[in-house]
Amino acid sequence: MAVQSNLSFVLNKPNDVSFEERPIPKLQSPHHVLVAINYTGICGSDVHYWQRGAIGHFVVKDPMVLGHESAGTVVEVGADVRTLKKGDRIALEPGYPCRRCDDCLSGRYNLCHEMVFAATPPHDGTLTGFWAAPADFCYKLPDNVSLQEGALIEPLAVAVHITKQARVQPGQSVVVMGAGPVGLLCAAVARSFGATKVVSVDIVQHKLDFARTFAATHTYLSQRVAPEENARQLIAAAGLGAGADVVIDASGAEPSIQTSLHVVRMGGTYVQGGMGKADINFPIMALCLKEVTARGSFRYGSGDYKLAIELVAAGKVDVKRLVDGVVAFKDAKEAFKKVQEGLVIKILIAGPNEKVEQGFDMSADRAKLRAAEAADSTGCC
Amino acid sequence: MAVQSNLSFVLNKPNDVSFEERPIPKLQSPHHVLVAINYTGICGSDVHYWQRGAIGHFVVKDPMVLGHESAGTVVEVGADVRTLKKGDRIALEPGYPCRRCDDCLSGRYNLCHEMVFAATPPHDGTLTGFWAAPADFCYKLPDNVSLQEGALIEPLAVAVHITKQARVQPGQSVVVMGAGPVGLLCAAVARSFGATKVVSVDIVQHKLDFARTFAATHTYLSQRVAPEENARQLIAAAGLGAGADVVIDASGAEPSIQTSLHVVRMGGTYVQGGMGKADINFPIMALCLKEVTARGSFRYGSGDYKLAIELVAAGKVDVKRLVDGVVAFKDAKEAFKKVQEGLVIKILIAGPNEKVEQGFDMSADRAKLRAAEAADSTGCC
Amino acid sequence: MAVQSNLSFVLNKPNDVSFEERPIPKLQSPHHVLVAINYTGICGSDVHYWQRGAIGHFVVKDPMVLGHESAGTVVEVGADVRTLKKGDRIALEPGYPCRRCDDCLSGRYNLCHEMVFAATPPHDGTLTGFWAAPADFCYKLPDNVSLQEGALIEPLAVAVHITKQARVQPGQSVVVMGAGPVGLLCAAVARSFGATKVVSVDIVQHKLDFARTFAATHTYLSQRVAPEENARQLIAAAGLGAGADVVIDASGAEPSIQTSLHVVRMGGTYVQGGMGKADINFPIMALCLKEVTARGSFRYGSGDYKLAIELVAAGKVDVKRLVDGVVAFKDAKEAFKKVQEGLVIKILIAGPNEKVEQGFDMSADRAKLRAAEAADSTGCC
Amino acid sequence: MAVQSNLSFVLNKPNDVSFEERPIPKLQSPHHVLVAINYTGICGSDVHYWQRGAIGHFVVKDPMVLGHESAGTVVEVGADVRTLKKGDRIALEPGYPCRRCDDCLSGRYNLCHEMVFAATPPHDGTLTGFWAAPADFCYKLPDNVSLQEGALIEPLAVAVHITKQARVQPGQSVVVMGAGPVGLLCAAVARSFGATKVVSVDIVQHKLDFARTFAATHTYLSQRVAPEENARQLIAAAGLGAGADVVIDASGAEPSIQTSLHVVRMGGTYVQGGMGKADINFPIMALCLKEVTARGSFRYGSGDYKLAIELVAAGKVDVKRLVDGVVAFKDAKEAFKKVQEGLVIKILIAGPNEKVEQGFDMSADRAKLRAAEAADSTGCC
Repeated sequence: MAVQSNLSFVLNKPNDVSFEERPIPKLQSPHHVLVAINYTGICGSDVHYWQRGAIGHFVVKDPMVLGHESAGTVVEVGADVRTLKKGDRIALEPGYPCRRCDDCLSGRYNLCHEMVFAATPPHDGTLTGFWAAPADFCYKLPDNVSLQEGALIEPLAVAVHITKQARVQPGQSVVVMGAGPVGLLCAAVARSFGATKVVSVDIVQHKLDFARTFAATHTYLSQRVAPEENARQLIAAAGLGAGADVVIDASGAEPSIQTSLHVVRMGGTYVQGGMGKADINFPIMALCLKEVTARGSFRYGSGDYKLAIELVAAGKVDVKRLVDGVVAFKDAKEAFKKVQEGLVIKILIAGPNEKVEQGFDMSADRAKLRAAEAADSTGCC
Repeated sequence: MAVQSNLSFVLNKPNDVSFEERPIPKLQSPHHVLVAINYTGICGSDVHYWQRGAIGHFVVKDPMVLGHESAGTVVEVGADVRTLKKGDRIALEPGYPCRRCDDCLSGRYNLCHEMVFAATPPHDGTLTGFWAAPADFCYKLPDNVSLQEGALIEPLAVAVHITKQARVQPGQSVVVMGAGPVGLLCAAVARSFGATKVVSVDIVQHKLDFARTFAATHTYLSQRVAPEENARQLIAAAGLGAGADVVIDASGAEPSIQTSLHVVRMGGTYVQGGMGKADINFPIMALCLKEVTARGSFRYGSGDYKLAIELVAAGKVDVKRLVDGVVAFKDAKEAFKKVQEGLVIKILIAGPNEKVEQGFDMSADRAKLRAAEAADSTGCC
Repeated sequence: MAVQSNLSFVLNKPNDVSFEERPIPKLQSPHHVLVAINYTGICGSDVHYWQRGAIGHFVVKDPMVLGHESAGTVVEVGADVRTLKKGDRIALEPGYPCRRCDDCLSGRYNLCHEMVFAATPPHDGTLTGFWAAPADFCYKLPDNVSLQEGALIEPLAVAVHITKQARVQPGQSVVVMGAGPVGLLCAAVARSFGATKVVSVDIVQHKLDFARTFAATHTYLSQRVAPEENARQLIAAAGLGAGADVVIDASGAEPSIQTSLHVVRMGGTYVQGGMGKADINFPIMALCLKEVTARGSFRYGSGDYKLAIELVAAGKVDVKRLVDGVVAFKDAKEAFKKVQEGLVIKILIAGPNEKVEQGFDMSADRAKLRAAEAADSTGCC
Repeated sequence: MAVQSNLSFVLNKPNDVSFEERPIPKLQSPHHVLVAINYTGICGSDVHYWQRGAIGHFVVKDPMVLGHESAGTVVEVGADVRTLKKGDRIALEPGYPCRRCDDCLSGRYNLCHEMVFAATPPHDGTLTGFWAAPADFCYKLPDNVSLQEGALIEPLAVAVHITKQARVQPGQSVVVMGAGPVGLLCAAVARSFGATKVVSVDIVQHKLDFARTFAATHTYLSQRVAPEENARQLIAAAGLGAGADVVIDASGAEPSIQTSLHVVRMGGTYVQGGMGKADINFPIMALCLKEVTARGSFRYGSGDYKLAIELVAAGKVDVKRLVDGVVAFKDAKEAFKKVQEGLVIKILIAGPNEKVEQGFDMSADRAKLRAAEAADSTGCC
């Protein structure tokens, strides 16, 4: 292929980023492919590393390329690859497990202790020109799914995994705490799983208005009252009777988690999809007496990317609506600033070899909405 | 049958009990049987009502007969009863659901909102002479299971339900926090489910010594250090590698619950079987990042009594070893005192029409052990 | 209420039916309600009894009222009924379990050995004026669901139960063998469960054309070739790759069942929803080597009626399209003849106290289609 | 290491075997280890290839080394291997999946289409001196498990997988059809899973006598009557009431499979663990009306080897009792003859570098027993 740029967006240390021309990676095995990155979304975790240089135990010690929500085009295939060919448009799963531990062999590769995950220290991310990956972690996009939608498959896969952890059954009622990107996507996925009542909950009316048009059948503006009382009002407002079959927390906020345990019905399921504090005050007696099943959700695993792509292809989740705009690679820094300032919900950065036609949609209302949305957790677990 | 006493042990208000001769109950339906009570165990909840007159939302407003851990003998059978006959020795399941709500029809009758449970206000208990119950909640005891063992089927059914909630699989490692009656029984049930490593954890060495002889393959004396550190030491001491497949908390103690979440492996299961405070400080990020499945456990449900009896009949759980002694009905008050003072782990009260041959085993050591044991939660959820 | 007719449609012996004015039933318990029957659909089993007087072990020895697919209006409520009131429009679940056996207490009441099922000898059916039933087996219809749709909840509940037995997951591919009423409904339910590819299979092109407009994303005209070859062609035609995730047989036909086992993928699920011969030639090695999970499905159980009603209310299954027409009670005999002659797919008989406005839709095309449809199994298991 | 023999036992064509000195294999990756084979058991499938040169679609076209039930000693470890070291004694899982397909990534690697399985054409087997394999498919034996027991982990893993497919729950009743090696091991595994009643069924009394001493709580001598009648007698003889919770067919025999469907209770589970004819006459209506769950079982998968080793180490399954004797590598041909003649149930062949002390146990009785045993399927699916 023609010589092209492998310009990369590197975090040197907190609030210190730079652009570097790095060597184009080689295929590590005959099962790998080389992908030219077309678009990359910015995740809350990218911003978090950029600002603070660490998330929990993960600390940025050496310069690290940012970004992990990408779609691209196959430019080279390894000798043993049968599933992809040059020119295929793909969504990129950015974490690569060892394939040999008990977790991998038993189908829980997202829990692999040797996981190599893009833009999680010490591993470089996908805000670069070219990316080498195992072919089975590159998912071909159907003709009716665009590369920009492809860059949103990653957050949608997060929502798919959360909703699977909740074992949502057709006809069930699902309450989603938090109407940020992941909360909105969880609501849409729950609908596609057959949930007949989906209640989006947030502390910002703007976000609920958006949620109502995106996927929710009902919304509830969370009140600043005791969790039990907040739950009582939510149950009454949404007509949940003895409580919700499923509650998903995509906010990570302590009061929201407390309310979740009081909203779920006896024998129901609550899933923690968003990350906040390490320890919180938790209504353990409600979990015990109601025989609630509580589950955590971490990234995504077997089948999640495939299903996420199917949901977009089938028109069940309109991910495009979450995108505010697309910027050129050289404007990556400004894009991060915008996300940090809360002026966008989801912004895509074009690859360094990509032309950008699209502009921005920063109308006052939308900016206001975004500012509110940016305020809460990214739900990235 | 010959006229007999239906003397009942009545809680009038906190610390005020009396003996009353009450009318022998009538069968409420052709599917009911009348049972002469032979033996009744004292549960922590009985003592709790006796001392404080309330547990959570359940408040003793009117005089209430205490007791719900009973075995008896069938003395009268309803016209439509085919499964029992006069003279059958039975273990008594003391809670009766409505059989008509969604929970009942879907096999979760322990969650029935209309449950009528013995010695839970406003319903009378089984410390009485005769008890009328639906035949399908009276379980015939095999010839090799005594009536005194029959009185221990109730706490064993609690442990069976907890262990089922944990979905213990053969070959798994199971940590049980708390070596009180329910914790001991959970350890034994886990062994019978095929767990190859069962670790009993407590703060009292005496109890661990007993646990080791009763069911545990390993024990760990809980340290007064940070939960993460306590978990690290526990995992090292018991050789749990990446963590325990299953952790059951049968203590209800806050530090023990916190440690549980740090002991369980990624993708593992934690079940809350004991009751303590309504709200505690909880390591929610551990639940989320490790994709832990957490479940509550409440009383017992479909199949639990049957399995509990099978485990005793098959010699897999030696419930006799938990009994300190048997007292005459007239000595019920003293028996309650002994439990309150922590001088017994499990004491049986004979029915008012029952002769008592057995004495006590209150050796110094045992008393010391008991005192320690009585200090912690009953694990009665 | 005003004196009204309890005229009943009685099968005396094969091909010998009569109308009898029978006494209006009394409530058997304070939990029962009395229902005035508005509409009743004719099921293949009704016709089968009418023609042959027996299905398997069930033999009509004494005169029996036919019919079990009914909707009605509550005219009297027992003293303890809280969930229904006079005037409520309801769908009638026609089988009543004992509520006391292990199957009932564990949530599998459809397997109850003491089940009393309408129009299954020796129990009378619902082609009558008034019907007394336990309130919890009468499901209130939402305002946007008509009484005629209510009469189709029964066959839809059959399809819901079959599809649940198949554990259909979102994004899966589902093949439904047979495009009779139950096959069509299974295809629609599978779609509502999130199946992204639903293939209807039949031997009659007319039925496939209808299926394509009703719920199927793909159709396949079954070929008269060896099952393996038929499966190969089906997989190729529908683009099923390594095979279907789920195959539901709603035909009961031997070649169709054989093909099912060759169409399902390794580790996939096959459910037998239709009834044909007692014993057939079965590809057992395919089941073993592919680790297929095969399940039977019998009637419907906990939650199935509720979900069926939700699917109609939510507009996910348009049951009206399966109805050819509605006849007056006095014309019941003619209606049965039409079904027997294969001139209708689903016909409703109005209750004896019901006025009928609706006519028939028996255009040549439709009749042709129906004739074909009537040829195969009703899928009533 | 000292130069040693890599003598291999090669099947050239049906009934034509030879010994060949082959090059010692090299490690294919830094995650591989080289294993010196100590003992290898003979499986029915080995004998089948030896006699007929094919099993189903698998046809021996080129010379192939036989054997796949082996234990050995690690003699060389790849650079990246952390779990094993030189000198470790291991049980050898003989099938290696691709690790990249949907089945592998979702934890069902035994269904991988690219599986490379020892002694399954065109892949060589383990009746050789040295074997190279990925370290994660070599399982270290605890000190209390011998290398000869290690060679029996493979058939035990087959039984573990079958019993897992049956989802055996504590307290359940399990009927095992066939008392050959796999049937005997399934009975033992079911016991270790908590089954309280395990019924071994066979057509040979000798085998039932052995089964009773090995694992079965009950036995039943299958009668040459209609399957329904045979099932009735079996249920009565073993006191199974409404039928068995679980039925495992480890015989592959048509009458035995037919009986299985009539023995299993409503809502119960039947697993096909043995292989016989491709198509049989099958009681499909029993599967449908009783809502039976039927599952196939193919080889073994995630966790099965680990659990098999734990069961031996814990003394729950005494695999030694199935071994008749051990022969020197040079006597492999005679060993195959003995198995073919039905004069042994399980015989081990020492590796070419292994000294043999052990003799034979071919007492008349035992030979008689073996002859009978050899008559039926190996249950190797």
